[in-house]
Amino acid sequence: MATAAIIGTAGYVGQETLDRLLAHPSLEPIALGSDSLAGRPAGAPDPRLNGSLPPFVPKAEAAASGADVLFLCLDHAEAIAFSPPADAVVVDLSGGHRLVDPAQAEAWYGAAPGAWSYGLPELYPAHGRLIANPGCYATAALLALGPLAGVVDGAVIDAKSGMTGAGKSLKASSHAGFVLENFSPYAVGAHRHAPEIGQQLGFPVCFVPHLLPVRRGLLATCYVTTDADVRGLLEAAYATSELVRVLPEGVTPELSRVQSTDTAELGVFTDGATGTAIVICALDNLGKGAAGQAVQNANLALGLDETAGLRLAGVTV
Amino acid sequence: MATAAIIGTAGYVGQETLDRLLAHPSLEPIALGSDSLAGRPAGAPDPRLNGSLPPFVPKAEAAASGADVLFLCLDHAEAIAFSPPADAVVVDLSGGHRLVDPAQAEAWYGAAPGAWSYGLPELYPAHGRLIANPGCYATAALLALGPLAGVVDGAVIDAKSGMTGAGKSLKASSHAGFVLENFSPYAVGAHRHAPEIGQQLGFPVCFVPHLLPVRRGLLATCYVTTDADVRGLLEAAYATSELVRVLPEGVTPELSRVQSTDTAELGVFTDGATGTAIVICALDNLGKGAAGQAVQNANLALGLDETAGLRLAGVTV
Amino acid sequence: MATAAIIGTAGYVGQETLDRLLAHPSLEPIALGSDSLAGRPAGAPDPRLNGSLPPFVPKAEAAASGADVLFLCLDHAEAIAFSPPADAVVVDLSGGHRLVDPAQAEAWYGAAPGAWSYGLPELYPAHGRLIANPGCYATAALLALGPLAGVVDGAVIDAKSGMTGAGKSLKASSHAGFVLENFSPYAVGAHRHAPEIGQQLGFPVCFVPHLLPVRRGLLATCYVTTDADVRGLLEAAYATSELVRVLPEGVTPELSRVQSTDTAELGVFTDGATGTAIVICALDNLGKGAAGQAVQNANLALGLDETAGLRLAGVTV
Amino acid sequence: MATAAIIGTAGYVGQETLDRLLAHPSLEPIALGSDSLAGRPAGAPDPRLNGSLPPFVPKAEAAASGADVLFLCLDHAEAIAFSPPADAVVVDLSGGHRLVDPAQAEAWYGAAPGAWSYGLPELYPAHGRLIANPGCYATAALLALGPLAGVVDGAVIDAKSGMTGAGKSLKASSHAGFVLENFSPYAVGAHRHAPEIGQQLGFPVCFVPHLLPVRRGLLATCYVTTDADVRGLLEAAYATSELVRVLPEGVTPELSRVQSTDTAELGVFTDGATGTAIVICALDNLGKGAAGQAVQNANLALGLDETAGLRLAGVTV
Repeated sequence: MATAAIIGTAGYVGQETLDRLLAHPSLEPIALGSDSLAGRPAGAPDPRLNGSLPPFVPKAEAAASGADVLFLCLDHAEAIAFSPPADAVVVDLSGGHRLVDPAQAEAWYGAAPGAWSYGLPELYPAHGRLIANPGCYATAALLALGPLAGVVDGAVIDAKSGMTGAGKSLKASSHAGFVLENFSPYAVGAHRHAPEIGQQLGFPVCFVPHLLPVRRGLLATCYVTTDADVRGLLEAAYATSELVRVLPEGVTPELSRVQSTDTAELGVFTDGATGTAIVICALDNLGKGAAGQAVQNANLALGLDETAGLRLAGVTV
Repeated sequence: MATAAIIGTAGYVGQETLDRLLAHPSLEPIALGSDSLAGRPAGAPDPRLNGSLPPFVPKAEAAASGADVLFLCLDHAEAIAFSPPADAVVVDLSGGHRLVDPAQAEAWYGAAPGAWSYGLPELYPAHGRLIANPGCYATAALLALGPLAGVVDGAVIDAKSGMTGAGKSLKASSHAGFVLENFSPYAVGAHRHAPEIGQQLGFPVCFVPHLLPVRRGLLATCYVTTDADVRGLLEAAYATSELVRVLPEGVTPELSRVQSTDTAELGVFTDGATGTAIVICALDNLGKGAAGQAVQNANLALGLDETAGLRLAGVTV
Repeated sequence: MATAAIIGTAGYVGQETLDRLLAHPSLEPIALGSDSLAGRPAGAPDPRLNGSLPPFVPKAEAAASGADVLFLCLDHAEAIAFSPPADAVVVDLSGGHRLVDPAQAEAWYGAAPGAWSYGLPELYPAHGRLIANPGCYATAALLALGPLAGVVDGAVIDAKSGMTGAGKSLKASSHAGFVLENFSPYAVGAHRHAPEIGQQLGFPVCFVPHLLPVRRGLLATCYVTTDADVRGLLEAAYATSELVRVLPEGVTPELSRVQSTDTAELGVFTDGATGTAIVICALDNLGKGAAGQAVQNANLALGLDETAGLRLAGVTV
Repeated sequence: MATAAIIGTAGYVGQETLDRLLAHPSLEPIALGSDSLAGRPAGAPDPRLNGSLPPFVPKAEAAASGADVLFLCLDHAEAIAFSPPADAVVVDLSGGHRLVDPAQAEAWYGAAPGAWSYGLPELYPAHGRLIANPGCYATAALLALGPLAGVVDGAVIDAKSGMTGAGKSLKASSHAGFVLENFSPYAVGAHRHAPEIGQQLGFPVCFVPHLLPVRRGLLATCYVTTDADVRGLLEAAYATSELVRVLPEGVTPELSRVQSTDTAELGVFTDGATGTAIVICALDNLGKGAAGQAVQNANLALGLDETAGLRLAGVTV
């Protein structure tokens, strides 16, 4: 049984990582780090967990727990400042180590990237023990466009995410009075997932995110101009994937089929008026877009079954 | 006092038209046509209206009421089959009379267009007494792109609408179990508002609509490539408009500011990575996108104040 | 034209009060007090208001503006500490001056009540110029139960409110991640509107509030044991009211018909198994439950038309 | 490995039953009956199931499949008309066989009850092979009140359910335009779960259901007058239960912790003003309120592990 520590367990991403470890047959959570919850029982934020887990400890203590894998569920500044212990696999769920170009890394995250490896297993498997877990929007855009990188040289990516993507901290844009019955674009043409997507594709993209009044789920509608066989390229790329499904002709992705799962759906269409190719990806921003992919990356780095602990099926209704 | 009849009052669009007539200082609803509600008091669907209005009558009777203006709140097949009385202004809120190219009209609506005039007052004012009221998606896309028609020759339009856009009839895609906490594209690259938008702009567009889990409101994110001064063109186009606001630099449109109003908001942005111009329009699908624009068209045709009966301000909270 | 000042304009209740003054034919907002927004234009929180109003000023300055009526949109501690100017009508929308029993006022609000008069116009009209505006839950419960006070001596009040009732400040229970797709009771058997309701009815009540995942609206389901003619008493109490409707037999109140209005709906039922009388009240927590009632109280105190500036009809759809 | 057939798989309850069987270690779904889907692959309603299951067959064929247990996911009239095969365990998820008093059964369901046994395992375990699965509202009310039956003789039950409780069929009250941002009581004092609750408790109850704008989850707030130790009685009743949790003092039940699970939460409170005991139960209307409890009943009847296939933990976020 391999062991895991979570550094930053109080937020959405930390909780979701813990949920997957609780269902994992070969990776045991031995240290739950949270400065705000330190000293309290694991059931403090959730009465269902009482008794089954060790109590929360300070983040530094969890980092020093000797676990085989550390999940960094921190904001990017904290993640950049974190000194990884020798030998442990470390999966950073923040954006702090994703950009490899020093100027871009400095511009978007205020620091040099360091020796981390980007890990989106279906397309860009990580190497080494320091893994930068992709952003939620980037995961959706890359699953849709990565297999097309050789045949397109630009894309419009119109993305929509549930509000857990913005985290649990209190801000006006996460207040229910702003979110409910509302829908709004933000960071228009200036979101830090745009350079991350561009880095992996090899060309810049036009990216606009929007905030959906739902708890979970993310859908990216991607527009490209190409004569290539888009459906064929995507079907080939994911032919053996357990987590990414290319839907049959005419079937549209829906949040409801991927919410609370670690899977993604891709729909492929051609615009009747202009011939534009339209690839639509739906996934759960906290699943394949964050904690699910982090556990998948950890599984691969530790030599475990790739999908152990992951949620392959969701709730039908 | 001019007089109005509504032909089809039971659906969302008919109800919203009635709401505006109730607030109108110079247009009086004298006949409420509804085959399903005929014989029942006006308060049958809404106890607030008891006593203040005549009872519902069959649609044919409302059409023969001699009113100065008829609002056709019918599906397009019924609207196409409708014989307008001589002399009355008729505003058709369906899509049945919007497409002027006979082949397109036949392909999308199964009938020749007839002698109707498209009426989007800020850009394409109607002439004559038979007015085709624009579609909700088309209104948003055209408000965003119409003033740019001379400087662009293509566009990607990614649109999202609240579920009242799909009407009150019972179908699986309007069932709350499908809509709540969900988000989904539909009619991808094959929606009948695409040819309507293309007709007015003069070039084909790539258009994808999505269903939002909200009751009202529509937002269209439009992407175009141009070197022109997009903000300048839009500000000039709407400088004197009471209903269309170009927002200051950096301010994003939001559903919540236009819901339950007959106004529209436009945000203008440039993508940092690709230079793509991004114009975002928010409006209420039942307001400026349907009943509000229909009353606006009627006001102009009857020589009344253009915004009489319209909702200029919404609910702040 | 009478004049008004708002002391605390940045929150929901202040905004809603301003909305009503903007529609008011005989009460002009001359001072908008907000310490957080002072110096900024009225359109700062809402681009629709640019140009039509004076800029925000500090609260103390608005209080000294010489306006005929001051609306205190403050938390209760600030409202209790506020020194009303001589001669002005002051409507306190907080709970600070509602409880008249010194021990209760001390226990729930930490201060003696002072010389304020409770003002729920249909049942308990205020006297004098210092008016304590009722709580949102209290308004709903009292509209349902006030007319029955002589024939019942206890009640169970199960109430449910939209999230704007909790205000605009940032707290975990107002975070969209908590509110969306959730429903939860709070302050069970220990909410400060319970003593307010009991004070006006003359007997203690069992009151439990719950948080609904909607933006606006409040519904209270009230259970009483009595042989009296409940429907008759309620219909008599509101026979001439423009704002409170007793619905016909069998018709249930719904949030959607009262949202964004200053009206209330009452449904009256008898339980088939136990004979319990069930009175259900729906209103908008920010309308009849707060700002609408405050303007109604001000209208009466200033000798204006009782419903001037109020929203009698809502949005049908 | 025991075998199961579902009679009526297209609706919410049938789908949820199937979801649990897919996760069940010792109960295999061998026949999926659905007249509307007959002949189509199991993945027709949900592309995730393609390949892993037999195709749909007509209901009559599934009923004759020889499975060890049949789950009847039918409306009550169809369930009453159904002839159970000899020897199979049959769990009826409709209300058709719940009421044992012939007059009540006739009045509410139009038929005599027959030889079925009510099965709420924690309180009223079924005997024999024909099991009437409790209603969703009844389950919540009984979990809250069953252990108190000896010390109380009446109750007010104010219940709120997500919209999947109303099923997948198309009706005006399930249309998203009615449900979204709305909240409404229905069948006030006249719902057929009231006699079911009264039957099990031994006294009539006052019951009012309301419709929540959420997809899943049900919360019942129950009010009783008693001097007994309510918390003690409840803790004793569920001390060894894996599915029902009595929450610690001061902790309130929430939909979000029970959604998509087969567990229930109970909160226990005393009203500060009147001493009324308040017991609040939250569960998932499709889980412990329907399919989860049906599989639990089947497990017990077949001698399997009581919680096999059930969802003990949900989604934390």
